[in-house]
Amino acid sequence: HPAGFQDVNHMVIFGFGFFLMVLRRYGFSSTGFNFLLIVLGVQCSLVMEDFLHFLGLQRYEVDFRSLAKAVVSMTAVVISTGAVLGKANPVQLIVMTLVELIFFYISRWINTTFLQVPKDLTLTHVHLFGAYFGLAVTSRFPEPPPGLDKSRSTPKSDLFSMLGTVFVWVFWPSFNSLLTDSKMEAVLNSYLALAVSAVAAFMLSALTSKDGKFRMTHIHSAVLAGGVTVSYTAHSIQHPWIAMILGLLGSVITILGSHCLQRCFNPALKLQDTSGVHFTFGLPAMLGAVASVVLRVVEKGIAEQWSDLSSLGYLVFVDIGAFCQTISTALITGLITGLILNIKLLKAVHVSKYFDDQLYWEVSFKIISD
Amino acid sequence: HPAGFQDVNHMVIFGFGFFLMVLRRYGFSSTGFNFLLIVLGVQCSLVMEDFLHFLGLQRYEVDFRSLAKAVVSMTAVVISTGAVLGKANPVQLIVMTLVELIFFYISRWINTTFLQVPKDLTLTHVHLFGAYFGLAVTSRFPEPPPGLDKSRSTPKSDLFSMLGTVFVWVFWPSFNSLLTDSKMEAVLNSYLALAVSAVAAFMLSALTSKDGKFRMTHIHSAVLAGGVTVSYTAHSIQHPWIAMILGLLGSVITILGSHCLQRCFNPALKLQDTSGVHFTFGLPAMLGAVASVVLRVVEKGIAEQWSDLSSLGYLVFVDIGAFCQTISTALITGLITGLILNIKLLKAVHVSKYFDDQLYWEVSFKIISD
Amino acid sequence: HPAGFQDVNHMVIFGFGFFLMVLRRYGFSSTGFNFLLIVLGVQCSLVMEDFLHFLGLQRYEVDFRSLAKAVVSMTAVVISTGAVLGKANPVQLIVMTLVELIFFYISRWINTTFLQVPKDLTLTHVHLFGAYFGLAVTSRFPEPPPGLDKSRSTPKSDLFSMLGTVFVWVFWPSFNSLLTDSKMEAVLNSYLALAVSAVAAFMLSALTSKDGKFRMTHIHSAVLAGGVTVSYTAHSIQHPWIAMILGLLGSVITILGSHCLQRCFNPALKLQDTSGVHFTFGLPAMLGAVASVVLRVVEKGIAEQWSDLSSLGYLVFVDIGAFCQTISTALITGLITGLILNIKLLKAVHVSKYFDDQLYWEVSFKIISD
Repeated sequence: HPAGFQDVNHMVIFGFGFFLMVLRRYGFSSTGFNFLLIVLGVQCSLVMEDFLHFLGLQRYEVDFRSLAKAVVSMTAVVISTGAVLGKANPVQLIVMTLVELIFFYISRWINTTFLQVPKDLTLTHVHLFGAYFGLAVTSRFPEPPPGLDKSRSTPKSDLFSMLGTVFVWVFWPSFNSLLTDSKMEAVLNSYLALAVSAVAAFMLSALTSKDGKFRMTHIHSAVLAGGVTVSYTAHSIQHPWIAMILGLLGSVITILGSHCLQRCFNPALKLQDTSGVHFTFGLPAMLGAVASVVLRVVEKGIAEQWSDLSSLGYLVFVDIGAFCQTISTALITGLITGLILNIKLLKAVHVSKYFDDQLYWEVSFKIISD
Repeated sequence: HPAGFQDVNHMVIFGFGFFLMVLRRYGFSSTGFNFLLIVLGVQCSLVMEDFLHFLGLQRYEVDFRSLAKAVVSMTAVVISTGAVLGKANPVQLIVMTLVELIFFYISRWINTTFLQVPKDLTLTHVHLFGAYFGLAVTSRFPEPPPGLDKSRSTPKSDLFSMLGTVFVWVFWPSFNSLLTDSKMEAVLNSYLALAVSAVAAFMLSALTSKDGKFRMTHIHSAVLAGGVTVSYTAHSIQHPWIAMILGLLGSVITILGSHCLQRCFNPALKLQDTSGVHFTFGLPAMLGAVASVVLRVVEKGIAEQWSDLSSLGYLVFVDIGAFCQTISTALITGLITGLILNIKLLKAVHVSKYFDDQLYWEVSFKIISD
Repeated sequence: HPAGFQDVNHMVIFGFGFFLMVLRRYGFSSTGFNFLLIVLGVQCSLVMEDFLHFLGLQRYEVDFRSLAKAVVSMTAVVISTGAVLGKANPVQLIVMTLVELIFFYISRWINTTFLQVPKDLTLTHVHLFGAYFGLAVTSRFPEPPPGLDKSRSTPKSDLFSMLGTVFVWVFWPSFNSLLTDSKMEAVLNSYLALAVSAVAAFMLSALTSKDGKFRMTHIHSAVLAGGVTVSYTAHSIQHPWIAMILGLLGSVITILGSHCLQRCFNPALKLQDTSGVHFTFGLPAMLGAVASVVLRVVEKGIAEQWSDLSSLGYLVFVDIGAFCQTISTALITGLITGLILNIKLLKAVHVSKYFDDQLYWEVSFKIISD
């Protein structure tokens, strides 16, 4: 238990800190705020659970499991942070963290109570919730002017960001196996899915770019797609090749998504998704959720020789329901949070000062990665 | 056991190596010498223990426990190194390592023999000893000229140093739980204390700086304060909120200390504490030592309903004695070591060549972090 | 098991990625291609084993052990990659990976079948095979023009490379103990050998350079020498001092080797071994193989009081045979692979474009580490 928890803690704090270092002048804030939000969020999760148990007059003890759950919940916030990266000030980020944790808790509670999803499985929706919540929040922020130089990456920030991606990649199997009982299968399936999606990411990146070169954004997002896709099913997949196919599909959907979204969808909706959480986490998680329904139905159907179709239909209904409820809750509460964050009290950053460390940190002279 | 040991090994070698990269032109030496001293010190510790057991005609076997103890002892040296960072040459550092290990061993032996501190708890004084030994040593080095540009940090070295801090932060619970039997409690209490102190570090840094910006030095030192503070009591705290309060106090004392020490104390004593080990490790460790006495007395007092005040008094006397003995031994032996290090034989570095990699490394052209 | 496997996975992917960042303009490719080759190679190993078991009509299940073996096998490829670093394009590297894995499998199969080496011990030849295969491959690539500026390192790439080395160093004991049953001894012996060789590396580097400065290449290669040297014997060494002496000898042979090879051997053979795998992995592995024979013979000789010299002779013959077979297979198949890689179909890189990220990555403006 402690070893697995330490791995995930390490991944979330150190790996995502690096992972978010995509902007040229935002290195301190990417890593620093990521760290601040995680430690704050974990404490709030623990206090909140403690308070809820106190209301229910139950005895509650902080142990590794509750700490692990708190860290996994925080992944939603980290992903949402990626969408508003460089646009929100620390106060806005802290408010967002607290609000998102509460809404994610409510969404999980609805899933458990009304849709009878097992309590532990509700946490698997963490990537889906985080991505769509973040997208909805970022849509309420004013768009930066198109020529803003600071929103680009430099080779150095790309390098750090790639190191972070590899770091997250290495620890993702531990993440997927943290809360499940069949750790062994979860680690193996996650590893295989991640391995396939990493290879597919390189291949597809070379195939889709003009002169056969690798593009950093592709690697950055598609390498993790397999891990996100199998996060719903890693503990229950029986045959390695299913995990491998899911990894491949995850990678494909991410790279196609990154082309379509950035050219059509985002400009149409005036969205600016700084670190691409929609195609990095949103699309593969959606694919994974659909795949988990299909796999469960097929598995149960084969076991029962397709005799009890109504019970299968109910299964599909409940799973799809949990999935739709999570997305819609994420989008609606995200929009509301986006509106709240832009009230005057929180002193939103002016667009010309987006993506800049110097607003938040006492920096001696010239800034890193310039 | 191996997993915990690997974590601590990783933290001490890799984390502290990064952590010490605060100077602009001293990246190679910070990480390289940190690494060299640790591997050298661990070997010497093992050989020393082997020799002492040989004298006592006892059979002694190198196992994980003795390796873990050796690595933990080395933390004292790493902390002291932080105080003389950039001023001492490798030969001086090696001599300091060997001398400090011997004096730390003697200080622990006094605590065990005369003050009847349990043998395993003597290692908890490691931060206290390291910080004050380092301060005493650095006071014997000539002060660098005030305008020396190389003693400043750059954004890039700050970034590396923050990454190192986060790295050390993540593994600190493993460090605090390495040598205790109640690992579970130690990890949880350390995690909570560290989480609170990290949040407090950001808050206090924004509150104490002029325009509400975060200052890197604050984050760098106060984030770890909670871990240092609970290192004495992590295994025995029963209620999470006690650990959280200790973490908060540790953070407060570090940030206040960094203001007071750098403005009043250090200039008055002509001290130059390069990486701020006094307020990063010294003050929180002192707070932790006092807190551990208070907690033990309160716990024992409540258990015995304050009936046996003389035995409580004896407890306080012994604990305070161990604490004062450690500090005074550290200061006195540190001063002596500082004098030894500056004899001609060791070819002390001239002040104009302080904080410079080029003196020790064959560097091709321009140096890192310039 | 999972903890040990994760350590090794982390070391191979993250550590070696950093470790290979020795060139000024090759940061993306060093880490990116290392990552790509490892995930690709692990999958191919698994599929190959699966296929071989399928042919043999045996039931085969992917588990941690087979995954661990696949990752360890990939170390050979990573080492060979170091020798052709910056010269081969991704397609060539992928072909090399697949071919090398097959030849390494065949070499192990010969050792198991004809020389009756226990199946698990065949994997200990991984460093030897990787180094000499890589050397043979690189000899078939055209030499870069002598004044090529891009083949040099900068302080920044040196720093990253040192961090990678320290990273690999920390996890090496986990690597040496991954596939053995006596993990405890393997970790302790490896740690001691590595510690001695690290200290020796610094000392020897200062002694052999002109003005007593440390040279980065020495640290970079000699620090790991001890780990490579004891990899054959880590699980079976009874006395810590034997491991320590092997670590010292490994370090000495590496530093002497780096002087001799770079001055005499490499220019004579027109070899250009970019990251020095010959003296970093080849020579210490050869020393380790010889030492393992000597230790086994001495141990068995003492146990049998040197009564059965013919059986000892047979032991020596078999061990030396396995060792020579591995080296010669590596050299011959490496030469063949080198010839295959330079056929027109694979579009070998022109020498003027060696060592350059811009050929493979869409980089916005100026490249890292310039």
